[in-house]
This record gives sequence, C-alpha cells and structure tokens, in this order.
Amino acid sequence: MNTADDQLRQRRSTSLAPSYQLFYDEPVHLVRGEGVWVYDTDGNRFLDCYNNVPSVGHAHPQVVAALAAQAGLLNTHTRYLHENVVDLAERLGAILPGDLNTCIFVCTGTEANDLAVQIARTVTGHHGVIVTERSYHGNSDLVGKLSTDSYPAAERPDWLGVVEPPNTYRGPFHVPDQDMGQKYAALVGDAIADLADLGHGAAAMLVDTSWDSNGVLIAPDDYVSRSAELIRAHGGLVISDEVQSGYCRMGRHFWGHMHYGIVPDIVTIGKPMGAGHPVAAVVTTPEIAAAFAERRNYFNTFGGNPVSAAVALAVLDVIDDEQLLDNATSTGATLGLGLSEIANRYEIVGTVQGRGLFWGLDMVNEQATRQPIAYADAKRIATMLRHRGILAGVTGRYSNVLKIRPPLVFEPEHVGILLTELDAVLDGFEPLGGDDARALGAEW
Amino acid sequence: MNTADDQLRQRRSTSLAPSYQLFYDEPVHLVRGEGVWVYDTDGNRFLDCYNNVPSVGHAHPQVVAALAAQAGLLNTHTRYLHENVVDLAERLGAILPGDLNTCIFVCTGTEANDLAVQIARTVTGHHGVIVTERSYHGNSDLVGKLSTDSYPAAERPDWLGVVEPPNTYRGPFHVPDQDMGQKYAALVGDAIADLADLGHGAAAMLVDTSWDSNGVLIAPDDYVSRSAELIRAHGGLVISDEVQSGYCRMGRHFWGHMHYGIVPDIVTIGKPMGAGHPVAAVVTTPEIAAAFAERRNYFNTFGGNPVSAAVALAVLDVIDDEQLLDNATSTGATLGLGLSEIANRYEIVGTVQGRGLFWGLDMVNEQATRQPIAYADAKRIATMLRHRGILAGVTGRYSNVLKIRPPLVFEPEHVGILLTELDAVLDGFEPLGGDDARALGAEW
Repeated sequence: MNTADDQLRQRRSTSLAPSYQLFYDEPVHLVRGEGVWVYDTDGNRFLDCYNNVPSVGHAHPQVVAALAAQAGLLNTHTRYLHENVVDLAERLGAILPGDLNTCIFVCTGTEANDLAVQIARTVTGHHGVIVTERSYHGNSDLVGKLSTDSYPAAERPDWLGVVEPPNTYRGPFHVPDQDMGQKYAALVGDAIADLADLGHGAAAMLVDTSWDSNGVLIAPDDYVSRSAELIRAHGGLVISDEVQSGYCRMGRHFWGHMHYGIVPDIVTIGKPMGAGHPVAAVVTTPEIAAAFAERRNYFNTFGGNPVSAAVALAVLDVIDDEQLLDNATSTGATLGLGLSEIANRYEIVGTVQGRGLFWGLDMVNEQATRQPIAYADAKRIATMLRHRGILAGVTGRYSNVLKIRPPLVFEPEHVGILLTELDAVLDGFEPLGGDDARALGAEW
Repeated sequence: MNTADDQLRQRRSTSLAPSYQLFYDEPVHLVRGEGVWVYDTDGNRFLDCYNNVPSVGHAHPQVVAALAAQAGLLNTHTRYLHENVVDLAERLGAILPGDLNTCIFVCTGTEANDLAVQIARTVTGHHGVIVTERSYHGNSDLVGKLSTDSYPAAERPDWLGVVEPPNTYRGPFHVPDQDMGQKYAALVGDAIADLADLGHGAAAMLVDTSWDSNGVLIAPDDYVSRSAELIRAHGGLVISDEVQSGYCRMGRHFWGHMHYGIVPDIVTIGKPMGAGHPVAAVVTTPEIAAAFAERRNYFNTFGGNPVSAAVALAVLDVIDDEQLLDNATSTGATLGLGLSEIANRYEIVGTVQGRGLFWGLDMVNEQATRQPIAYADAKRIATMLRHRGILAGVTGRYSNVLKIRPPLVFEPEHVGILLTELDAVLDGFEPLGGDDARALGAEW
C-alpha cells in the first residue's frame, strides 16, 4: 500500500466507527469504474466479479444521465404528484407475476425487508418469522434479528424460526435423494409448529432464492413451493427477498423466485435496482397493501422521489435495451461451465453451485470429507485473485465459499479472464488452515 | 385539477399502495424547482415554505454537479478505500461539539435513529427508550414504535417511556413559571423510574430539539440539560435527533441541541444532509463507537458511498459559501417578527413558536381557552395558502399548528410574500370546526 493510501486509512480509522471493515489486508483504493472494470489510484484495473450493486455496470452513462437530469429539475417526495414514481410502479408491476402490482418505495433493502415483515405481521396478526440459518436480510433492529450472522446465537428472539438452508452438498439431507425438497421443507413445517406452540404463529417466511449468505445454493426444485404451501396453510405469508436473486441475476428469469415456480405474497427489491443509487421497494398484492394501510401509517421521505424513480427507470431501460437478462443467461451458462471445469480439475473445489451471473465455489480440504477450508484460506484465495486483478468475495455458513457475482454486463471475454486467473491461483494452492474466525456478519 | 393530473392520480392509486397520501384535496403536480420556488405542469409557481429536504434550495447547481460528477466516475461501497467518506466524516466531526467525531453513514433518518437506538441498547445494556408524546423518529419496526403517532396507543410497547413535550403554551406546566423546565424534566425522571421498575432500564432519550411533530416548540432553557442529567445518572444516553433541528435550521447554531447547551452522546442526521439525496449519519464518541463494534456487526451497503458522500460534502460547501447559517439567523429573525405581528392581529393565532427558519403557529378557536382549531380548519388554511402560491404544512399533537419550514435559502423578500399571503388568508377566516380526524401519522 502506498503512503497516500496509508495516510487515508489512518484518517479513516479515526473518523469512521470501528464497525467499518475493509476488504483485503491491503485494501483497494478505487477511483473510477466503467462497465465491469474498476481502477485504482495508480491506474491499475480490476475485473469486478463481485459487485451486484452496479447492476448494469459501473457508471453507466444512461443511468448517470437520468440521475443528473432529474436532479437538475426537481427532487421532492410522494406527497406531491409526479409521473416518475407512477411509471416505475407500473413497470415493476408489469414484470412481476400474479397480483404483485402494488408498490411502496423505500431506500434500502433493509428498509424493504423491515417494512415487509411489518406488513406480514400486521396483516396476519402473527408475530413469528422464519429464515434460514446464517441468513442476511439487512441491518435494522428488526431485520438485523433475521440476520442470524450478525449477533450471538444466544440472543436470538424466540419469535424467530431458523431452519437449515436447502443445501444439496452439505447439511442434514445432502445425500442425493428425490425427497430432498420435501425433507428440507419439513423443517420449515417444524419451525411453524414451534412458533405456534410459543403463541407467536408464523407471520412470514423470508426466502432469498439465491441463498447468498448460505453459500449460493440451488435448492431442490420443490423446496420453495412446498415450504410456501406449509406457511400459507398456517396463515403466514411468503416474502421473496429479491435483493440478491432479482434483477436478472440468476439468468433466464427476471426474479429468483420464478426458478422455483411460486408467486410470493410480498417481494422486496434493493441493491441492483438503482445501480448504486439508494432506491428499493416492497411490492405486494392490492389486498395485502389495503389490509396494511387500514391498520398502519407508512411514509418514507426519500422513497420513490422523482430522482430515485428516474434512476430506477433508467436501470430497467438499460436491462431492456442491452438485453441483460439474455446476457445473464448466456454468459452465465459459459461461466457456470467454465467454473465446473475448474472444479473438476482441483481437489479443493468441493462443488460449484449457482445460476446466471451468481456462483459459489464451495472449497474443501478434501473431497471425501467435504470439510470446509478455513476462512483464512478462503481469504487467501480472494486476496491472490485481487493481486491478479480480479475482485471476488467469500461467503457461506462456513466462510469457505468463493463468491462470483459480477455486474450484469459481464461478457464471455470477461469469463475467460476470470477463469484464467482463478486457474492460476488454484494451481498449487495448499490450504494452510487457521483459526482466523470470521467476525460476525463480516461478509467479504 | 386538469384531466392529465386526474389520469395520473388514477394510475397512481392502482400502482402505489393506499398508504400513500397526497397533500391537498387538489394535489400539486410539481415538475421543476429552483431555490425556494417550485413549478407545476401549468407553469404556476409556488413559494416553498414547507420543504426542509432540499435544504440548500431546490436543484442547487453545485449539488447537482457534485452528484453527476461522482456518479459518472464511481459509486461503490465503504469496503474499498475512498477519500469522500473520510472527508465527510472529518467535516461532520469538526462541526460537532465535544468528542462527537466518529461516524457511521446510513441512507435515511429512519436508519440513523434505528441504529442509534441499537447502539444505545448494546452499549448501556438497557432496553427502554424515552420519547415525547406524538414524537416522530422514522418508520422502521423499531423507530416506528418510537413514533407514537403512527399506531394505536394500546399497542405501545412497555419499554417505551412517553413524556409530555416541553410545551410552554399547552400542557401540564404551561403557566409561566421559572421552574417550568424542571417540572417537565421531572416527567423524564418519572419515565426513567418506570422503566427501571419494569426491568428495562433507560437506554436512551431521543430528543428532537425543534419538537417538530409536537407542534414546533421552544422548550424552557434548562429542560434538555436537566433531562440529560437525569438519564445519564441512570446509565442512559442522550440521542439528539437532528434530522429536523440540525443543518442550520434553527439559526444561530448548526445543530439544534446547541440552543440548549448540551453535548449529546449520539447525534443522528438525515433529510437536509443530502438536499434530496438519501444520505444520513450517526455520529458518536470514539468510546461508544468502540463499545458497539465490540458486540455487534454493522454494514450499510449504500451508506457513505462515494456519490452520497460527494453530495453531502457539496451541501456543506454550499452552506459555507452562501453563509446559510447567517441567513437562517437573520432571515429567520425577520420571519419570526413578521409572524408575531400577524399573530398579534388575529385571534385565531394562539401563539407563535420557533427559531431560525422553522416556525409553528398554534391556531386556536379562541385565545382564552386555547382550544385548538379542528384539523379540517388547519387544512383549509394550508389549502388556501396553496391556492395563493404558498406551500406550508400542518403539524402538532392536535394537528392545529401551521408549519413554516422553508429551504435555508429563504430570503427577506420571500418572507414578505409569505406574510402578505398569510395575512390575506387569515383576514376574515372563520373556523368551522369538524371531526375530520387526522389519520395516524398523516403529517402534512
């Protein structure tokens, strides 16, 4: 790290709270981005294989132009009439299935999930919420509790039902079996029963159909629909957290839940929606929205303001214009194939799971035992990639999964670069182990 | 309302949740803003005497330029190094008193207050929170509970201590008395004792030193300091919610709490900070920040990103360059004087309270009884103003307070326009009464 960066880091450590963390022991200091590339102060470029927030690519000119144009005109709130927020709500309603066409705009995925749970509790009269172990749904007091990775297990509230993620490689039902989906769904049923016994009932199940924080999973086909059936039978709602899995991320479908053949009761949208601008949404049915509005007030100052809505509309335009859903499908297939080929060649890659432009490589000390590599080793791999100009991440319940989640404008040539560098890093890589315990919630 | 607006309103009502409300029976459809002026689709202009979010004026070119420039370069997150977030943290630390120099950036006032309470609870080990009756601090599950206006009183959690606002015109201790501050502070003491009895303890008192939702109040000089002393004596923290009162709003000082001679333990900042852009912050001492980071993880995807930070820095620059603190003080004095003169001439104005560029006119059916006018009457006044080209609001515990809170670039000539129109509206205005109960939380 150069002297200027070292000085900046010093200043940072005295002006920002110690909660702030940096990726890599030798952090990158980015100053410019374009498409899938980001550049540091020395002009070094990095291929961004990690960031989903700049969904349509870094600094997309069409998005920046929409942002600047509307900010130069007017930025106010939804208590005055404005076209943009209505246009945006209609656009989202049109690409969501069923009756999911009634929107409330907020600023972050946290606000979206917090509101979605408030809605579910208000409408169902139940209090319990079901999530997977080591889920992450945000950082408010409420959804922080749903993010079981963020605080000690001893402090879990009793209204939280925590179930095993539907992992087909690890976990209680990982042995290939046609009843796997049913078995994992039965755990949701158990959690519902527990919440009923405690008098909470089940208000909602939150599901991220990319299972990002669980290590990026492909669930058994019938898992989500069976779980949804169980929770609905007990008067609860299905909240599909599309912050990770939505916006074409998984290829083939715009929304993650579509891969599992269900129509959720509530959908939450965040990160990719504004390609960096803080805009997010809760979309539900007219009936649920009406039942909530009867009992509760809700207003969000910045939510759906003309600038945020203009940006979100521009992102949808770019996705259409550049056919980014098709790109996520086709480039994603190339990427998946390439990663699988690498997995076949290296003992350290236990399995590759993912879809579209979201993949996880579950790294193991040996294939036979499937013992996860140490967090320190996973970080070493990510760090070696960083020094070869590739930004990737580490995720999963055991912090051993290499996470590949590039902007949607990732193309086959970028796949080639990533695979070459990954190959070079894994070639001869020896896990050293280590007890460098990952801090709570310290995803990177 | 013209046909196009009517069609837009129809589309709006089917695509946005019924939680959305519009100001005025005949809403305004704004399309452009500049300084203190906003314009509708027909080119009619309105003097904005309501909106504090566009703090440095609508569509300020310097802020728009900073937004566009940084968005065109890079928008990422705080896990990579970047100058902007550090510059911003240092700037805020430099203008806050005492050791308030350690920042966590978030996107909204809601997220800021939610995090501040999480910090207070984590650090103190207590659970109770004290707010004033009909306070408003945001809309997440947690801070929605602190916003006693948003839900039925029967659903109040028992960890919430709700005290009478320090109103010198209404309330239990409104008779002029040098012990008024002490008497109101004693209610905070009672609430602390109640929370102790319930086993919650007092983690924090949240105070908005403009008492916006209480009707815009000037508290007795010693109220805040006495209350702070009481809560600290019982191991709790003082959270100053500067979303309304900060950023020069009250004139003379940058922060509202400075009018009351205290240094809070935590400060939360929101709306005016980004002049429309969703950027907000929690600032606390290094000790409190460290104690929180030891026990809890916190990361906010959009919080403190290079674009948000660039915008927030530009807002601070404009405040300096255009000497907006001085303007809030001097134009504010002119405004306060003019409103007092009007109050003296009309029986319907019970009292005028406020400071700088934030004023409330407490409207009464008669001076002797101080009976608040009906909400319907307050809305009629705001609506008559709207038809005379003035945007103002209604607030207060009894929804009878006319709220004047213009952008900080409000100048004496604008004061003149406002006073002329207000005079014309109040001249001959007769309260009609009515039982048009205000919806929960339906501020306008």
